[in-house]
Amino acid sequence: MNLDKFFKAKSIAIVGVSQNPSKVGHVIFRNLIDSGYKGDIFIINPNTKEILGYKSYKKIYDIKNEIDLAVIAVPVDLVFQVLEDCNKKRVKNIIIVTSGFKEIGNYQLENKIRNFLIQNKIDMIGVNCLGVLDTYTNVDTLFLPRFRLKRPPKGGISFISQSGAVGSTILDLAAKNDYGFSKFISYGNATQIDESDLMDYLINDKQTKVICMYIEGVVDGKKFIETAKKATRKKPVLVLKGGITEESNTATISHTGSLAGDAAIYKGVFKQTGIIQVSTMEEIFDYSKLLENSIKPKGRRIQVITNGGGFGIITTDSIIKNDLVLAELSDSSKKILKKNFPPIAQIHNPLDLLGDANTERYKLAIETCMNDSNIDIILVIALLQTPLVTVDIVDVITELNDIKKKPIIVVCTGGNFTQVLKDSLEENGVPTFTFPENAVKSINSLVDYARK
Amino acid sequence: MNLDKFFKAKSIAIVGVSQNPSKVGHVIFRNLIDSGYKGDIFIINPNTKEILGYKSYKKIYDIKNEIDLAVIAVPVDLVFQVLEDCNKKRVKNIIIVTSGFKEIGNYQLENKIRNFLIQNKIDMIGVNCLGVLDTYTNVDTLFLPRFRLKRPPKGGISFISQSGAVGSTILDLAAKNDYGFSKFISYGNATQIDESDLMDYLINDKQTKVICMYIEGVVDGKKFIETAKKATRKKPVLVLKGGITEESNTATISHTGSLAGDAAIYKGVFKQTGIIQVSTMEEIFDYSKLLENSIKPKGRRIQVITNGGGFGIITTDSIIKNDLVLAELSDSSKKILKKNFPPIAQIHNPLDLLGDANTERYKLAIETCMNDSNIDIILVIALLQTPLVTVDIVDVITELNDIKKKPIIVVCTGGNFTQVLKDSLEENGVPTFTFPENAVKSINSLVDYARK
Repeated sequence: MNLDKFFKAKSIAIVGVSQNPSKVGHVIFRNLIDSGYKGDIFIINPNTKEILGYKSYKKIYDIKNEIDLAVIAVPVDLVFQVLEDCNKKRVKNIIIVTSGFKEIGNYQLENKIRNFLIQNKIDMIGVNCLGVLDTYTNVDTLFLPRFRLKRPPKGGISFISQSGAVGSTILDLAAKNDYGFSKFISYGNATQIDESDLMDYLINDKQTKVICMYIEGVVDGKKFIETAKKATRKKPVLVLKGGITEESNTATISHTGSLAGDAAIYKGVFKQTGIIQVSTMEEIFDYSKLLENSIKPKGRRIQVITNGGGFGIITTDSIIKNDLVLAELSDSSKKILKKNFPPIAQIHNPLDLLGDANTERYKLAIETCMNDSNIDIILVIALLQTPLVTVDIVDVITELNDIKKKPIIVVCTGGNFTQVLKDSLEENGVPTFTFPENAVKSINSLVDYARK
Repeated sequence: MNLDKFFKAKSIAIVGVSQNPSKVGHVIFRNLIDSGYKGDIFIINPNTKEILGYKSYKKIYDIKNEIDLAVIAVPVDLVFQVLEDCNKKRVKNIIIVTSGFKEIGNYQLENKIRNFLIQNKIDMIGVNCLGVLDTYTNVDTLFLPRFRLKRPPKGGISFISQSGAVGSTILDLAAKNDYGFSKFISYGNATQIDESDLMDYLINDKQTKVICMYIEGVVDGKKFIETAKKATRKKPVLVLKGGITEESNTATISHTGSLAGDAAIYKGVFKQTGIIQVSTMEEIFDYSKLLENSIKPKGRRIQVITNGGGFGIITTDSIIKNDLVLAELSDSSKKILKKNFPPIAQIHNPLDLLGDANTERYKLAIETCMNDSNIDIILVIALLQTPLVTVDIVDVITELNDIKKKPIIVVCTGGNFTQVLKDSLEENGVPTFTFPENAVKSINSLVDYARK
């Protein structure tokens, strides 16, 4: 199964484009125009001649050009007829956004569609989904207006989501925080193409560095396990599993028509295949950012460098709670630091640079830790509110991070002034966090992934 | 012990104001000028005549006016002499920001200071601290420049912090997110005034609705327990305990000279006294916001209303994980909703309003839940990216929330467009969250507090 044309389509036909700008088909059409998509766009609506200057076709097979991808956004009772039209036109890649199938008990029609697709060798994402977004080619079938839901910039995170809302709101939040994404796929009921097919495609996608998934139920367990094993050998895979309690199982059936199944079995599968299971939406966000940007650590020994004593303590507590290890500075490191630091500084882990720490003191501390073979990961807490930390701390940390010797993770807690410096670090590829506990949990996922 | 003058001082003398704008004393002086503080400011520096247009005194007792509060920011070896000067001037309220006492093993000087304070009936916050901030009176002794560390607006949260950095960076973050604070106190080594004295003061402070604390070690256990019991009867008290692992205990000694002690004992004390123990900095943020703004729920039965199926499922999982209860809609509620909602809508918990939900549908759902005696708390997930949710959803939810019948908590996940509406809700006193899991955890703390 080659899904290239879903993301790299040179021509897209949207079937069911209304004149009404708030209708799904129209929103998709308009988004595609606005997205910067370079291919040809065709629209099908038998009741009109033209929309937004584009000719409207009666049937998809009236179009002369080859159609790489068709997006079906017609009412549920017209879907099958449109599918037959697409087949007549020999369209091999289809997204059906329409809902009203097995998620409301309409298994018959969904099965009929599946059989038709298999018979005619057509690949289909959907039904009951948002479809795809590719930030590199600007293919965008999300029926959410771009002013309400911003699209994130280009980057290395790809997201496969059984729920359109969970995935798309994360995209929107990512856009706000300037996190780069590569591909987003909302696959809904997984009538034919399922989560494993999509994961499989992303394994060899060069623009994808980290695969994130939101799953309620898996269609084919064996296929999922095999694909996941293959995937995690090449890149990190994060999964948020929805429906891990009995109470939410009823909801998953009416949502995407899937059985959520036993949470313990899923947990076992994730562990066995090397998937990192996250437990909150925020963790997807935090972990994927770190996994995308950081090099792999050699072990789990962390050295904490801080200019706030309380932060050192909170971070230490968090390291121990997460079963990570506090590194022990080597004797030669201790010697260097003792010689250069004020006598009251505690040369220890956490290494407290004190409230009067300046940028130079940070530089010496990080450099020393980079050369210390007792240390695998350097966690820098830089409270930028203190007067002696100058703004060139961004350059200092960036330069040291660029050596790519050990993962350097930075915590900056604060308001607008801090945010500016934090954003600069992020732009330079240094992973940063607002809260130390989130940083440590994310480091734990990085260590888990690196150990495989 | 009446601590009023620390927050409502009509005159403040700063001892140790350098000409150098990056020195601690100078920063405090300048911040106080910039803060909008209405009282008189005096400065003491024997080596100069004037700084920023203010006359500089040689000794504090050279000042003719009465001094309500003295802030001591001189080097450690001069502190005791300055203290004697203050006593000569009969100053009864002092903040000592200077460090270099028991946190580096200098117990002798700290004990000498304590004895002097007791003998002369002087109240002192410090040593080794940032002092206080009162957003209502603008008393501000934090030696962090206001452009680097913003001060939050007026509000109902007060924060007592053993660590200056932990407390002040949270203030800064609060300022960015527009969360209102009342008082902030960084008390450092607790040489004389300790965490219990400060908590005791806030019990009867009308501007304080929620007391938050960051504590490494408690000075007097019995006093703490008695004060906490008294406090939690009147308002919620949240505590983040630093040093809950053996590994971080060494760090607490060198930080504020305190013994962190056994985490299990502290946990027991917090439980016994009705304190809500949080485990992360983010939780302080989330919980205090909800506890400040929400009315008390009658029980723990939550109804989830959503326009995204996946969000309903994630939220349900989170409710069960937090030992909260999914409410069961009454028959009459079900009847109303069935009659008015599309036939495919599942009248259930979570109540999925579907992707085409409009503001009217939200209104009917929330109203119905407010009148349903099976429901204690209404958790509304409003994904504002969907085209049919109009911006007047802010007014609709605000009006329903203003009835103050049941707690209404709103989750809005997304980017800039969402943020604008989310901020409007917050301004109107509706507690909102970005992630459903954070909302549910915070509701748990609200339920715990209400049950007492």
